[in-house]
Amino acid sequence: MAPRPVVADLRSDTVTRPTDAMRAAMVDAPVGDDVYGEDPTVARLEERVAALLGHEAALFMPTGSMANQVGLRLHAGPGQEVITDHLAHVLRAELGAAAAYSGITTRSWVADRGLLDVDTALEVMVADGGPYQVSTACVVVENTHNFGGGTVQPIEDMRRLREATAAAGVGVHLDGARLWNAHVATGVALSDYGACADTVSVCLSKGLGAPVGSLLASSAARVAQARVWRKRLGGGMRQVGILAAAGLHALDHHVERLAEDHARTRRAAEALADAVPGSVDPASVETNILVVDVAAGAWTGPGLVAAAAEQGVLGYPTDVRHARFVWHLDVDDAMTDHAAERLSRLLAAGPGE
Amino acid sequence: MAPRPVVADLRSDTVTRPTDAMRAAMVDAPVGDDVYGEDPTVARLEERVAALLGHEAALFMPTGSMANQVGLRLHAGPGQEVITDHLAHVLRAELGAAAAYSGITTRSWVADRGLLDVDTALEVMVADGGPYQVSTACVVVENTHNFGGGTVQPIEDMRRLREATAAAGVGVHLDGARLWNAHVATGVALSDYGACADTVSVCLSKGLGAPVGSLLASSAARVAQARVWRKRLGGGMRQVGILAAAGLHALDHHVERLAEDHARTRRAAEALADAVPGSVDPASVETNILVVDVAAGAWTGPGLVAAAAEQGVLGYPTDVRHARFVWHLDVDDAMTDHAAERLSRLLAAGPGE
Amino acid sequence: MAPRPVVADLRSDTVTRPTDAMRAAMVDAPVGDDVYGEDPTVARLEERVAALLGHEAALFMPTGSMANQVGLRLHAGPGQEVITDHLAHVLRAELGAAAAYSGITTRSWVADRGLLDVDTALEVMVADGGPYQVSTACVVVENTHNFGGGTVQPIEDMRRLREATAAAGVGVHLDGARLWNAHVATGVALSDYGACADTVSVCLSKGLGAPVGSLLASSAARVAQARVWRKRLGGGMRQVGILAAAGLHALDHHVERLAEDHARTRRAAEALADAVPGSVDPASVETNILVVDVAAGAWTGPGLVAAAAEQGVLGYPTDVRHARFVWHLDVDDAMTDHAAERLSRLLAAGPGE
Amino acid sequence: MAPRPVVADLRSDTVTRPTDAMRAAMVDAPVGDDVYGEDPTVARLEERVAALLGHEAALFMPTGSMANQVGLRLHAGPGQEVITDHLAHVLRAELGAAAAYSGITTRSWVADRGLLDVDTALEVMVADGGPYQVSTACVVVENTHNFGGGTVQPIEDMRRLREATAAAGVGVHLDGARLWNAHVATGVALSDYGACADTVSVCLSKGLGAPVGSLLASSAARVAQARVWRKRLGGGMRQVGILAAAGLHALDHHVERLAEDHARTRRAAEALADAVPGSVDPASVETNILVVDVAAGAWTGPGLVAAAAEQGVLGYPTDVRHARFVWHLDVDDAMTDHAAERLSRLLAAGPGE
Repeated sequence: MAPRPVVADLRSDTVTRPTDAMRAAMVDAPVGDDVYGEDPTVARLEERVAALLGHEAALFMPTGSMANQVGLRLHAGPGQEVITDHLAHVLRAELGAAAAYSGITTRSWVADRGLLDVDTALEVMVADGGPYQVSTACVVVENTHNFGGGTVQPIEDMRRLREATAAAGVGVHLDGARLWNAHVATGVALSDYGACADTVSVCLSKGLGAPVGSLLASSAARVAQARVWRKRLGGGMRQVGILAAAGLHALDHHVERLAEDHARTRRAAEALADAVPGSVDPASVETNILVVDVAAGAWTGPGLVAAAAEQGVLGYPTDVRHARFVWHLDVDDAMTDHAAERLSRLLAAGPGE
Repeated sequence: MAPRPVVADLRSDTVTRPTDAMRAAMVDAPVGDDVYGEDPTVARLEERVAALLGHEAALFMPTGSMANQVGLRLHAGPGQEVITDHLAHVLRAELGAAAAYSGITTRSWVADRGLLDVDTALEVMVADGGPYQVSTACVVVENTHNFGGGTVQPIEDMRRLREATAAAGVGVHLDGARLWNAHVATGVALSDYGACADTVSVCLSKGLGAPVGSLLASSAARVAQARVWRKRLGGGMRQVGILAAAGLHALDHHVERLAEDHARTRRAAEALADAVPGSVDPASVETNILVVDVAAGAWTGPGLVAAAAEQGVLGYPTDVRHARFVWHLDVDDAMTDHAAERLSRLLAAGPGE
Repeated sequence: MAPRPVVADLRSDTVTRPTDAMRAAMVDAPVGDDVYGEDPTVARLEERVAALLGHEAALFMPTGSMANQVGLRLHAGPGQEVITDHLAHVLRAELGAAAAYSGITTRSWVADRGLLDVDTALEVMVADGGPYQVSTACVVVENTHNFGGGTVQPIEDMRRLREATAAAGVGVHLDGARLWNAHVATGVALSDYGACADTVSVCLSKGLGAPVGSLLASSAARVAQARVWRKRLGGGMRQVGILAAAGLHALDHHVERLAEDHARTRRAAEALADAVPGSVDPASVETNILVVDVAAGAWTGPGLVAAAAEQGVLGYPTDVRHARFVWHLDVDDAMTDHAAERLSRLLAAGPGE
Repeated sequence: MAPRPVVADLRSDTVTRPTDAMRAAMVDAPVGDDVYGEDPTVARLEERVAALLGHEAALFMPTGSMANQVGLRLHAGPGQEVITDHLAHVLRAELGAAAAYSGITTRSWVADRGLLDVDTALEVMVADGGPYQVSTACVVVENTHNFGGGTVQPIEDMRRLREATAAAGVGVHLDGARLWNAHVATGVALSDYGACADTVSVCLSKGLGAPVGSLLASSAARVAQARVWRKRLGGGMRQVGILAAAGLHALDHHVERLAEDHARTRRAAEALADAVPGSVDPASVETNILVVDVAAGAWTGPGLVAAAAEQGVLGYPTDVRHARFVWHLDVDDAMTDHAAERLSRLLAAGPGE
């Protein structure tokens, strides 16, 4: 039997396609050679994002991974240390780039749902290791937390971490690929989050729906260095204003609507929790990501994802016990209800179906 | 006195802006998530470039630097060696990325105008250094050669290198950022050049006029590996078909017209050689790049470039004795004559003017 | 007031000086060029250590750090992952070498006294991350555990880890710098520990009292590769048999006597626990390392260490709350009692004294 | 037929064994933990070598490769450039360590017999590449030059290079593994050579006959940094004074006698040149290394080396056309004459014998 047509692609919020209005904004964008810093649309986007985050400057990047990796490189070089939680995107999903390309050594703590535990972070941190031990140059906080299930890191914890690290001379990088979601979910200003970190990455091509692009915000001096590291990584693109125009459009039209994604994710979570108690804790679903504990239905993560795909509902197995489903611009109410219904049925029936 | 308006931007062929027709092609392109290999426009472009070069597969890249660096990584890892000429783009203009990111060690020979000297390459090469000496994994040929002045590497030399290296088990990477120019200048098929190398990079955003994008072509197995290295470098972009559409348009409309750029470059070269003998050897101007020996006019490279900029003619000082001027899609006959006239006058007058 | 003469140097078991008998063994050692594999004394030592650990081959190394780092490199390359506890010597005390030199990315879990928690290790481990996530290549176990306080990792846990990792295709490296101490403390054969790992490092210049030298044991194929990595790291020394002779002497004369160090460490621990309850848990002192919780005496780690040095008792502050004291060949009963007495008095009096 | 016993081991001057007097010096050496900077014999050796080279400080290293690699790291980090000749030991014989461990990118020029061509070095050098091109941080000179055939780099050239690079802000590293030979051959003071470089490596275990050890000399500030890089590379050994004592003995007794090695090498060179004109140019044999052009006798390098080994004369094939023979402490007149006679006969007879 052939798989049914895809009805809800919930693998990631990266799969969104640009809307017609976004494409129209792109086609007319004035452009220039951005390696020489001459693209006016890129400049507008960089200024706007810097202002939103309360930083001096920002730099356009081809991907969130590059924004994070250049950010880390501004804090630490070969043999210096970055610490974060064990599910962090920078450690799990960027293919070891910090070590491979920057020689940055890392340690982590095991975090429940990716939630920042400030005390543990401070325990692991070694502010000054002297000549015989590694010194910690930077702590990374991911907000919202992807593999943690869209978890929002409370601003109070971020502030406490910021204070303690600043006192010790240790930097903070905020992986804010989905910081827009945290902002919309909590009402905390982007600049309040931005104030808790020396470097911040944000992504345009996830919930915001732009086809390509991320930014790294920091001080003007750091962003000048970032420009060189971006070029060395092969990220110095030319007339990139066409992509930046999509980002500007997204900032105008696609931020506040993230609340709709959150509401749909919550609705699906409640449906699943009703159908198979223990599979999801709806109280833990804060934004647009739903991580299902498939053991409640006797599935494995890959098993459930494969079975759901047969029903036209696409997800991602984060590990043997969990499957992740992500809401975004291209998923409406009908798709949400369809997905919730199919997943509930599969979880309830178990893999023997 | 304010600088005059720019009348000819000859800094590089990277400065071209997409034409209206190219923008129209971009706005309608079907797209998908290319990290998952689902962008149909990217797939069309990759297949087409692979076929042109006679390779099994190709991979879209954000920049030519990344295409080269991933290409080198497929040949060599930490502690292994790549050799090339001392002016090669991979060594001079990619900010040491091969060493910094891949641990690849390099040696070079001093090359006149970047021209491949096969005997010297074979002398430098160490096919099997055993456990005590470095082994050469790959030779890089750049064709045409940027800092050499748009030099075409003769296909006969490339074939001889290919044979000798293959016999010794050493790879060849062709940095073909401007291979289109070599093809148009000589009539040699792109696939004939492609047959001389295991990995080939080509660029869409130089003479071809696309805003962003390069490709790496090789065997299917190598391209599969390249996909992982691209992701690790932060080059895994999402709905990138919008950029690929520009590349497809450029392949349809902007390849054969490179002959016009070549003719204009030659015309400017002849004007300068007439005005200041010794400043340019027109016979050496084979494609779209003009390297002027400014010592003939008692200038330094940076000095002449600064003075020309005051006259609205923009160039690039490649070193203390040379200035480079590059023709492209956005430079017409009038600009060419204007630039030639101003440069001739400056060279003839000397810096005392 | 001048500091009193040193009466007990407990900074580390690395400070031992070779005995006269050991020096006599060194002076007569037959030697050869070990880069060419021609040093007969080195060969004898390598064979003997390999046999003790139940591995096919072993390689002499200038330091334990190099033995560990080459060991990790045999498991993982750039972008691949190694996991271990957050206090591990390979992460904290080798200056980030795994990332800086091998591009190896690392994650860790927070471990009480460095004790291996197999379940947590298996939770953190990602046996196959596919093309989008990091894959774990190796788990490191340190036995005994230096910063954990000379903790012995139970052989049962090591066996369980070995089984689970082997089933998943993940390697194990045993940092056995002080494996001799674990062996003497438990009676478990060195080869039983060796059977739990693919690669094992052991050190001759700690408790065993040799001036210089460590070994890496593994399969013959891996040791052949290790020889190349050692050379690349600058560890290919020449007539090194003079050092190997000290190691052979130590294996003959200094292994079983480690029990004396353990007994003295325990005695000092009991004295401190009596004097300042909470400063030390004698039950946790299993080998030759005593980690004192200085908070019990209102000290900081560096504060207590500085004050003790004034009394001729040298230690090492492992962090703000802990000070470490290590017993070895050059510390006798009198020194032990002296040190215990001074430390007890300082802890009891507090920093105000 | 079994190979005859070895009568002259001319593979390298690394194969020397310590004399009885040297061993006696080692056995009594006072020692301490050199990681803590407490080994008095190491301190004496470091001070003495620094004084000889006219530098502020020096650091003991396990090998010449590590001394060179740490030296380069003091000049350049990831993405920065070092340039030297294409036969340099740092590029050919240290297994790509500068790239693999420090991310240092390199270019080279093709050098006749490794001889420094200052004009070419200055042509290749890019003192300030700005944000788009690599900048040269350091030029390496190897004196004497190993694969060049023990060539002495003239002090006048070194001075000219030092002046031009200093004016441009580019550093110089002197790979002086065999600087003792240059000093003895020319009478130029070691400190005069030392004045031409920011960092200098020298080796004790080649012509000087110590079993193990090299030093890196530089300013006190740089040597303090070198100590950390040495530790990170796994070169922080403990009671290493036993090895340093051999070095001190060698400085007392084995420097001036290098003249004997040079005389013997010259005598062998003349014998070969007489027997097979074109195989050796005796005028080019300046120190203790003889590189034979085996093509004059219709051999390949490996072929001649294998045939000579059958006759008890051991050499090293540097490439397909050359074989190297090196004189040292353990080769006397009789061995020299024997070797010259056998090599002459083989070269004259050709491989058909």
